[in-house]
Amino acid sequence: RINGERLWDTIAAMAEIGPGVRGGNNRQTLTDADAEGRKLFRRWCDEAGLATTVDRMGTMFARRAGAEPDLPPVMIGSHLDTQPTGGRYDGVLGVLGALEVVRTLNDLGIRTRHPIEVVNWTDEEGTRFAPAMLASGVFAGVHDLDWAYARTDAAGKTLGAELERIGFKGDAPVGGRTIRALFELHIEQGPILEDEGIDIGVVTHGQGLKWLQVTLTGKESHTGSTPMPKRRNAGLGMARVTELVHEVAMDYQPDAVGAIGHMEVYPNSRNIIPGRTVFTIDIRSPDKRVLDEMDARIRGGVATICEALAISHEIEQVGHFDPVAFDPACVKAVRDAAERLGYSHRDIVSGAGHDACWINRVAPTAMVFCPCVDGLSHNEDELIYPEWATAGANVLFHAAVETAGI
Amino acid sequence: RINGERLWDTIAAMAEIGPGVRGGNNRQTLTDADAEGRKLFRRWCDEAGLATTVDRMGTMFARRAGAEPDLPPVMIGSHLDTQPTGGRYDGVLGVLGALEVVRTLNDLGIRTRHPIEVVNWTDEEGTRFAPAMLASGVFAGVHDLDWAYARTDAAGKTLGAELERIGFKGDAPVGGRTIRALFELHIEQGPILEDEGIDIGVVTHGQGLKWLQVTLTGKESHTGSTPMPKRRNAGLGMARVTELVHEVAMDYQPDAVGAIGHMEVYPNSRNIIPGRTVFTIDIRSPDKRVLDEMDARIRGGVATICEALAISHEIEQVGHFDPVAFDPACVKAVRDAAERLGYSHRDIVSGAGHDACWINRVAPTAMVFCPCVDGLSHNEDELIYPEWATAGANVLFHAAVETAGI
Ligand SMILES: NC(=O)NCCC(=O)O
Ligand SMILES: NC(=O)NCCC(=O)O
Repeated sequence: RINGERLWDTIAAMAEIGPGVRGGNNRQTLTDADAEGRKLFRRWCDEAGLATTVDRMGTMFARRAGAEPDLPPVMIGSHLDTQPTGGRYDGVLGVLGALEVVRTLNDLGIRTRHPIEVVNWTDEEGTRFAPAMLASGVFAGVHDLDWAYARTDAAGKTLGAELERIGFKGDAPVGGRTIRALFELHIEQGPILEDEGIDIGVVTHGQGLKWLQVTLTGKESHTGSTPMPKRRNAGLGMARVTELVHEVAMDYQPDAVGAIGHMEVYPNSRNIIPGRTVFTIDIRSPDKRVLDEMDARIRGGVATICEALAISHEIEQVGHFDPVAFDPACVKAVRDAAERLGYSHRDIVSGAGHDACWINRVAPTAMVFCPCVDGLSHNEDELIYPEWATAGANVLFHAAVETAGI
Repeated sequence: RINGERLWDTIAAMAEIGPGVRGGNNRQTLTDADAEGRKLFRRWCDEAGLATTVDRMGTMFARRAGAEPDLPPVMIGSHLDTQPTGGRYDGVLGVLGALEVVRTLNDLGIRTRHPIEVVNWTDEEGTRFAPAMLASGVFAGVHDLDWAYARTDAAGKTLGAELERIGFKGDAPVGGRTIRALFELHIEQGPILEDEGIDIGVVTHGQGLKWLQVTLTGKESHTGSTPMPKRRNAGLGMARVTELVHEVAMDYQPDAVGAIGHMEVYPNSRNIIPGRTVFTIDIRSPDKRVLDEMDARIRGGVATICEALAISHEIEQVGHFDPVAFDPACVKAVRDAAERLGYSHRDIVSGAGHDACWINRVAPTAMVFCPCVDGLSHNEDELIYPEWATAGANVLFHAAVETAGI
């Protein structure tokens, strides 16, 4: 069994880097805070005797040699980047839980047959540089490396330049190698496990997602002196699309969700009718047919809304992944580990996207969920208890070591 | 008659300061660009032999002595600050048209009985520091000086500190002196004069306004893994209030308008349900009863919307003025001037707020409107033709000189 106290202290130490405003973290990808977090992680890996390499997307792989050096590695890990107002556990638990796995192997003097690599994927959150899970997507061959480098943040900086600036543009090629299996431990980010009082979620599937970035163009004009019938209000258009997305998601729930989290208004002045709005629709479903139907209904609805308001629209898909079914053998390894350790468990579908969802395309993959208080995530108040983290890391340990062989 | 070509060249010279991105201006109040515009204006005033004083709100008064020095001045002017994506004429025409009036008096060697003061009011637009028409409001005793100093912009800077920084916190007390009359020339900012092919609007009334700044607080959480019924979406709340404001305005139009031009979303991430939104409702009517009814309906509607979404709300009134009836004698002076000069004219209600609306409380006041293309304002494409500017300045000249006496 892993050392729960050591894991908890390690998580607390990471949370000191890029603090938020009320107890969480703002350690967005490729910022100075992210660089600092990466350096601390590398130091811990050095201390654990791991050999760390960085690939050209900045993803960090900290390798513990196996008894048979030519066998492909078992990867375990997640991401250390956070949302602008993120929690301490989203991603972090998975990386530092994986570090705890190798620390425990060191303590026990166990050498696995396959090497084990602890991974920290770059830009999982996708807030600064869309889409989410960007580096794992490049690793899995979903995105092109140069396309990823060219992603820009709100200030116009490119991902490639920022990787270079913080000193984490590595030499290793991105992907293209054989992986025995990948396991990712993560907080559920939803309320199911806590509501049902269950220790471990055995993740069998992941929801599919589409991010549709919409630009509405009306005509900015004076809020006081422009007669109502003469207005071409891009803000009103955004409001109607927000309601539309909600209605469509409500029609399909519980098999779908949908919302708009990102909205920009130009020129954003109290006495100017918005001439342009830019916002991103987020729709998800575990059922690809439902996701496609929602997409079609929303596109049709946006066109109708815009016609009525005499505004024009453009829709760009800035993120997309299909629903995922994880590898049955890896899923079984997780379920068996939970069972063996005596934890209550249930099969579960991930509502969020994860790096594991991309890696599942190029290697056998599964995920371990632990509960989080009130299902709350992407919020500084995100909370888990030490015993939940310990249980998750124990399951990760057993599933990974089982798969890596002794 | 005034020199139309000189007026047009002067407007073009001012437009070079704080250029916008497509031909308009971004010369927001108390920025470096505003300071540069003020200095150019002061130089022009010096060259015209005027004595410029600056009051403690930064408002500039450039005085041309009268034959009877103890008589109160006739004021003419408007504002040089612009919207972030503003036009070249909104406010500017009124200040530089007034400058052209005194230049013409100089050319003709006319000495009026009353002194004439050309005024440039601070922070008319209200975008950087709400409310709009702030300095004229202090001048008219509507706002307290210290309260005005404490207004903050989006970066948290105070108006008082910014006045000091750009070197325009003057010594003169704000208001408290007798004014013979004030005339403000302005573009209509609406489509009526152009649609009807009329040269001059004789402004008899101004609409009343309320700015209600609303803060909605929900709970930020993950867009993918938070079930639909568990969401407390402050962005959806903002969308519904946007629709509500539109519906209420449509019910009362053409005697009312309403829209939301300013919206902020927190934390504004694609995969976070908005936990907080802040936005400003702008409602207007020439009829105080209608304005009050709209206000009540909107407050009731916001409460209902928030209850249904399990979010809380706060409403702060950040701007307000009642409908205005201008001084009958001053209005007549404008109408007589237009008539005498042979311009087509009609009585008109101002859809926008103006410094003249506040000054009307402490001095006899009226306004002159000239048309603007397509009624478009608060837009970089705002456009007027030289002959429209000339006509407006000629009417201003006649009305002001008539009132100042020869
Ligand atoms: N786990 C997680 O929050 N990933 C970010 C991508 C998403 O929005 O699902
Ligand atoms: N004239 C003008 O645009 N004034 C700003 C205040 C308002 O919004 O009416």
